[in-house]
Amino acid sequence: MIDIKIEKGANKKKLKSDFWWQREGLAYIDNVLHFENKPVDELIHSTPSYVYSKQRILENIDRLSQALIGKNLKHSIHYAMKANRHPSVLKTILNSQKVGVDVCSPNELKLALDIGFAPNQINYTGTSISKYDYAQIALCKGIRFNADSLSAIRQIGTQNIFDTIGIRINPQIGLGYNESLEYAGNNVTKFGIYSDQIQKAFELAKNYNIEIDTIHFHVGSGYLNDQLPKMELLLENLKDLIKTYDIKRLNIGGGLGVPQQKDDVPLDLDKWSSIISNFVHFQCANPNLEIVLEPGDYFVKDAGILVGEVTYQEEKNGIDFLGVNLGMNINYEYAYYKMNLEAVPLTNNTHKLPQKSYTIAGNINEPIDLLGQEVILPLMQEGDLIAFLNTGGYGASTASNHCMRGDFSEIII
Amino acid sequence: MIDIKIEKGANKKKLKSDFWWQREGLAYIDNVLHFENKPVDELIHSTPSYVYSKQRILENIDRLSQALIGKNLKHSIHYAMKANRHPSVLKTILNSQKVGVDVCSPNELKLALDIGFAPNQINYTGTSISKYDYAQIALCKGIRFNADSLSAIRQIGTQNIFDTIGIRINPQIGLGYNESLEYAGNNVTKFGIYSDQIQKAFELAKNYNIEIDTIHFHVGSGYLNDQLPKMELLLENLKDLIKTYDIKRLNIGGGLGVPQQKDDVPLDLDKWSSIISNFVHFQCANPNLEIVLEPGDYFVKDAGILVGEVTYQEEKNGIDFLGVNLGMNINYEYAYYKMNLEAVPLTNNTHKLPQKSYTIAGNINEPIDLLGQEVILPLMQEGDLIAFLNTGGYGASTASNHCMRGDFSEIII
Repeated sequence: MIDIKIEKGANKKKLKSDFWWQREGLAYIDNVLHFENKPVDELIHSTPSYVYSKQRILENIDRLSQALIGKNLKHSIHYAMKANRHPSVLKTILNSQKVGVDVCSPNELKLALDIGFAPNQINYTGTSISKYDYAQIALCKGIRFNADSLSAIRQIGTQNIFDTIGIRINPQIGLGYNESLEYAGNNVTKFGIYSDQIQKAFELAKNYNIEIDTIHFHVGSGYLNDQLPKMELLLENLKDLIKTYDIKRLNIGGGLGVPQQKDDVPLDLDKWSSIISNFVHFQCANPNLEIVLEPGDYFVKDAGILVGEVTYQEEKNGIDFLGVNLGMNINYEYAYYKMNLEAVPLTNNTHKLPQKSYTIAGNINEPIDLLGQEVILPLMQEGDLIAFLNTGGYGASTASNHCMRGDFSEIII
Repeated sequence: MIDIKIEKGANKKKLKSDFWWQREGLAYIDNVLHFENKPVDELIHSTPSYVYSKQRILENIDRLSQALIGKNLKHSIHYAMKANRHPSVLKTILNSQKVGVDVCSPNELKLALDIGFAPNQINYTGTSISKYDYAQIALCKGIRFNADSLSAIRQIGTQNIFDTIGIRINPQIGLGYNESLEYAGNNVTKFGIYSDQIQKAFELAKNYNIEIDTIHFHVGSGYLNDQLPKMELLLENLKDLIKTYDIKRLNIGGGLGVPQQKDDVPLDLDKWSSIISNFVHFQCANPNLEIVLEPGDYFVKDAGILVGEVTYQEEKNGIDFLGVNLGMNINYEYAYYKMNLEAVPLTNNTHKLPQKSYTIAGNINEPIDLLGQEVILPLMQEGDLIAFLNTGGYGASTASNHCMRGDFSEIII
């Protein structure tokens, strides 16, 4: 049981909660799921529908920002647009005046400029960049560019696009919700320049009169407290590199995790920022080292929910299936990465019996099209509404029209 | 070495080929990749670009159709629109006058009607069908409907949508290129009604005065000769069911495979149709049993290629990466299902040394975004064009705008 403070109208009351995910702004009130104090069923006009909370995005930004300010770190924060590019989400982030944007393609770059980000608020970190992409990038010289490979340095050099760049290195330590979300680590990935090529990268840059002032690394998506020692080790490994090459900026990429299931503990941001602070102020002894943060979908993940409708519930060969009117084309996080999308009925009926252990099935004709397995819920009925939590990132922005099931709404509150 | 007959202008010549994938219509001519006798680089105006061959689609239809006609089987054939819904592809299939269409969602149903398929040429086999979907389906009563679950029978009955339906059963035997593409088999999947519920399905239908005249099953995607014995067994298991319930139509779903890599042998259609014929004429002894075929993406898979451009080639930590200007959002077959997308340079340079074993990397910022691994090619250069074969199905129709990398062309020749 967790103590949760629930706002309701002008009154505040404390609620004993059986739901690990409840928080101010997302909770059952009188057994109806409320998001930012509004009943979710009144927020949507059809399903499937994503609902995003501006307030939660701003809270997440503030929390991270405060953790860095508290440690007296020279820093900037950049939001990975690929997680969610809804214009209102991007404007909310811009208007926070605390966060720039990280883009990975020419179209994302154009969108960032259209939304109103200034070039100096934009980091471009792409992979497998084409001739066409470089031509587009060259039109916008005020941005910061992180080279992901030696060939990217060569292209920037021969085309004379930037005088100063960062390089993305592969730290060979991966962090993430699970191994398939690690961008570095045991498996060799396509991302970044490996340690044996770093010297060559600097030599190459020098040949083109390019200064490398930033080291960027990306470790994966969604790390929590248990992985902080790996992060500490990872930073320690970079100390000599930063000193040797007089690096001015350390760009820490990788999605900070949020709790996704019962027993997950929120990332301890004080501990996390202490690790960074210790690295900057003691290991490097360089308070001028600027920390650039790219915290993945941390700002948006728990600021979004996806609402669907139950289409059927039926036992098949010993498995209780719960069908919903959406599929992996609207949200692939479970189908591809087995990430928990906590399923929450819009009406709290969890006191009801019998409880079932459901496999939640989507409406796409592919066998992997599931939204969850072994999901404990009371018996659900056709037409019941259900919300999938923590779906504010990598949902709508990755959606497809597979099976022509691509219709959904996005609502921002 | 394979003997391949290559058409070139008015002349025909025989070519000794080192390439397992060469065939009439897809081959190097004077070291330039030709598709339907046209140089591929002249067919496209930008990359990435899918190119589809009408002629190959029609050849595939004819081949399958002849195999069934040769066995004196009463039959109809239906194309699974979800594999590729390019209007010209759909019109080519319609105009063949040999093939109807299988749809799985209201939007696919609307598109089929718009293209010109008559209602009686349309099978609707969906999963997790919502109230909204049923309302749309009810507007088009002339189609055939396959119920995927008991709850679907209940919905059709209570809403009085059809008098006669098929049911999709789960045969509990799966066939496919690999296990993740099996729709039935060892793992319990969401598809179909399992054997222990079939009697109940008929009782339920009877309660609603619905006749079940069709048994449909779907085994998976992409079976080849080695899996034919499993198909034989699967049919044998259905004999009693067909007799007991006086079934008029057997709908055989599941993608017939095409060779995807060296040493794959094309499906022996004579053997395949003999198995069906033997089942119809001897085991069931019912020549009036109509065979309805839904051969997945068999008509389109090898009728499409995807052309991309090499963005870089670089060794990273012992792995030779070859970057291309497209990613898993344009084609997910390798990233999600590890299916081979044979990579073929547009210019035949395979005599060149050194040969490399490449990991082909896409331009999406996700670690699983690969197009192939251990792909043997000569040293490639930035700007080289490369075609991925067997990409006519489940490519464009499943594409997303992830990372805003969703721009591509589709060309039909």
